[in-house]
Amino acid sequence: MAFQKPPGTQDFLPGAVEKWQYVERVARDICRRFNFREIRTPLFEMTELYKRGVGETTDIVEKEMYTFTDRGDRSLTLRPEGTAGAVRAYVENKLYGEPDVSKLYYIGPMFRYERQQAGRYRQFHQFGVEALGAVDPALDAEVIALGYAFYAEFGLKDVRVEINSVGTPEVRAAYRSRLLAFLEPMRETLCKDCQARMDRNPLRVLDCKTDQHRFDGAPSILESLDDECRTHFEAVQRNLTDMNIPYVINPRLVRGLDYYTHTAFEYKAEGIGAIDTIGGGGRYNGLVAEIGGPDQPGVGLGIGLERTVLLLESQGVQLDNLHRVDVYLVGLGEAAERETTRLLHGLRLRGIAAERDYQSRKMKAQLKSADRLQARFTAILGDDELQRGEIALKNMATGEQTFVALDALADAILKG
Amino acid sequence: MAFQKPPGTQDFLPGAVEKWQYVERVARDICRRFNFREIRTPLFEMTELYKRGVGETTDIVEKEMYTFTDRGDRSLTLRPEGTAGAVRAYVENKLYGEPDVSKLYYIGPMFRYERQQAGRYRQFHQFGVEALGAVDPALDAEVIALGYAFYAEFGLKDVRVEINSVGTPEVRAAYRSRLLAFLEPMRETLCKDCQARMDRNPLRVLDCKTDQHRFDGAPSILESLDDECRTHFEAVQRNLTDMNIPYVINPRLVRGLDYYTHTAFEYKAEGIGAIDTIGGGGRYNGLVAEIGGPDQPGVGLGIGLERTVLLLESQGVQLDNLHRVDVYLVGLGEAAERETTRLLHGLRLRGIAAERDYQSRKMKAQLKSADRLQARFTAILGDDELQRGEIALKNMATGEQTFVALDALADAILKG
Repeated sequence: MAFQKPPGTQDFLPGAVEKWQYVERVARDICRRFNFREIRTPLFEMTELYKRGVGETTDIVEKEMYTFTDRGDRSLTLRPEGTAGAVRAYVENKLYGEPDVSKLYYIGPMFRYERQQAGRYRQFHQFGVEALGAVDPALDAEVIALGYAFYAEFGLKDVRVEINSVGTPEVRAAYRSRLLAFLEPMRETLCKDCQARMDRNPLRVLDCKTDQHRFDGAPSILESLDDECRTHFEAVQRNLTDMNIPYVINPRLVRGLDYYTHTAFEYKAEGIGAIDTIGGGGRYNGLVAEIGGPDQPGVGLGIGLERTVLLLESQGVQLDNLHRVDVYLVGLGEAAERETTRLLHGLRLRGIAAERDYQSRKMKAQLKSADRLQARFTAILGDDELQRGEIALKNMATGEQTFVALDALADAILKG
Repeated sequence: MAFQKPPGTQDFLPGAVEKWQYVERVARDICRRFNFREIRTPLFEMTELYKRGVGETTDIVEKEMYTFTDRGDRSLTLRPEGTAGAVRAYVENKLYGEPDVSKLYYIGPMFRYERQQAGRYRQFHQFGVEALGAVDPALDAEVIALGYAFYAEFGLKDVRVEINSVGTPEVRAAYRSRLLAFLEPMRETLCKDCQARMDRNPLRVLDCKTDQHRFDGAPSILESLDDECRTHFEAVQRNLTDMNIPYVINPRLVRGLDYYTHTAFEYKAEGIGAIDTIGGGGRYNGLVAEIGGPDQPGVGLGIGLERTVLLLESQGVQLDNLHRVDVYLVGLGEAAERETTRLLHGLRLRGIAAERDYQSRKMKAQLKSADRLQARFTAILGDDELQRGEIALKNMATGEQTFVALDALADAILKG
């Protein structure tokens, strides 16, 4: 009986995993520069947290969560997104009591039971940041800039930043009425999704791929913004301009979750099929209080790493030599093999990536293995060399071969 | 309503998470040197995999798994350990068809529903390696050496390596009979755990903390080894000696899982309470076939990262300056603040960790924030400096303050 991975999940194997390691290193380095610090929360939370923090009537909560009962009869859910857990930890650990803004990031797996389709996984991976504790629009712009810098770091081209203001709940309520007045006469002729959205979250109707062309005369939320919202939105734009971040305003941009206030934004890119949103986020000033914390504001983003990796591939971004060893050691004869064991370990303790054979292969096969590993050097030890206390070291780039004293092998490789 | 993390789980917050990042970086670097490459498998697998690959009658499978049914009516289980998933991926992706030994590592969360006690978590974290495809005892020794090098890299003291051979299944069956003959007369007087183990896995009885003193005359598995097992075990020892890895032979060492063959080993350390095993592993030549693959051998180890971090703390290993920023920027006045936004982003694009204020705080409070972040520099821009195209840059270690041209700020910080 052979086993398979569960549907919708992936194995990341050597040869492919290095790309993921690289993307994560870049994410961490970008966060270091922007002074965001990592937070790691459990991979499951009490189910109630997501009902409250994501929204009882969202697709995620209604249809997509991996929810189960543990042996202590608690309802737990594998995290379907990263914000609720980060905000829960911010509240539970009283980070709001610290003098500085909490600038947090996370990288890791999320879980949604989605219909299987290309580029959609049930265990997928996100990089996200959350900045909690300040209303400063400079922080909205900084979060947008961070995501843009992340994509730019890979040399990805044509990543478009779209921004919008979804206002405060009061602004949105007023706009909602105006929008419904516009939509109501066409309700029966709209697609099923739109009809359902009209009742739940009419702002999302404007985002519909099918009916979009019919909404040309629809009222724009930007016209409904009050002074506070307009001032905030203008300041976000000014900050983006000062940082030289290109953006376009998309008044129909609404994020899927209900808790956004003021700024909403998305990153879009061509080239990975139908999916064009590769990341996004926004400000969520009501969320911390919603899940039981003090009334603290927040702004964050989430970036899909599967989509980032797809985009790297579709744009042909080269990530060369992510895995290679420094030296491949070959020992010929019993005494030399024992010395090779000692040498190999010594090299590794000096920080050198060193490999050998474990399958009693002939020298030729071992050297092929060295090639596969893109070894920078091969070092061959026969009994003759061993008696002289030397080893033959070959630089694989230049083809140059020298004999070096066994004691000097590490230095020769580190210098090479 | 305030939410709490589920019992037995942890939040890793800034200030503590850096220690984890560091431990993981070391694990990855050690693997690089030993030419082990990362594999990432899903965080849940079909439940049947663990029944087969861990053992139907183990505590893990009987009592500790997070098992649930997904919306497609599959029984899934959050991974309670890393080997079964890695071996499943090795088989499913046919890595055994590759010419070289598959040397794999993983780092990440595992899940077991354990009774809550100090140092035990329901989501815990392991670093493990699996080397599949070779019977060479040099590989057993290398895996043992890798774990030892991992602990040594932190400067941890007094980590003891214990090794044993648990033989082949045939050897073990013969030994089991001899051992039971020794134990049977004292069955009624042994502790409950021992009595249960006598029926399931009598080799583990000798490991009992309570009754250990009564087993002085018990037969040793080492006396039961056949020639093949003895030769293998001796070669492992010779390799360890050649690599200068100190070890002791503990003939009572038996790992909890049933699938080990030949080598079993553990790392032990004092100083983290009752728990003295901090990692371990062994050879498992039957496992690949057991879960439906070809008859390929394997050897691996697992290291508990919670215990590693506890040990670092208990031995007072200092990990300094794991988080600090390069520069804290202060802008005074509206024009200077806008310029600060531009400067800050430019510095970050140059790779510099740069921070500012988002809470409209006075300069004094901002400089306190710079102190908390251990900023290497502070840079203060007033309207006067702005007009001259300069900024005041202070080296916080030396106290030295200079004025540098705005364009030269990044270079001055990178040089400093």
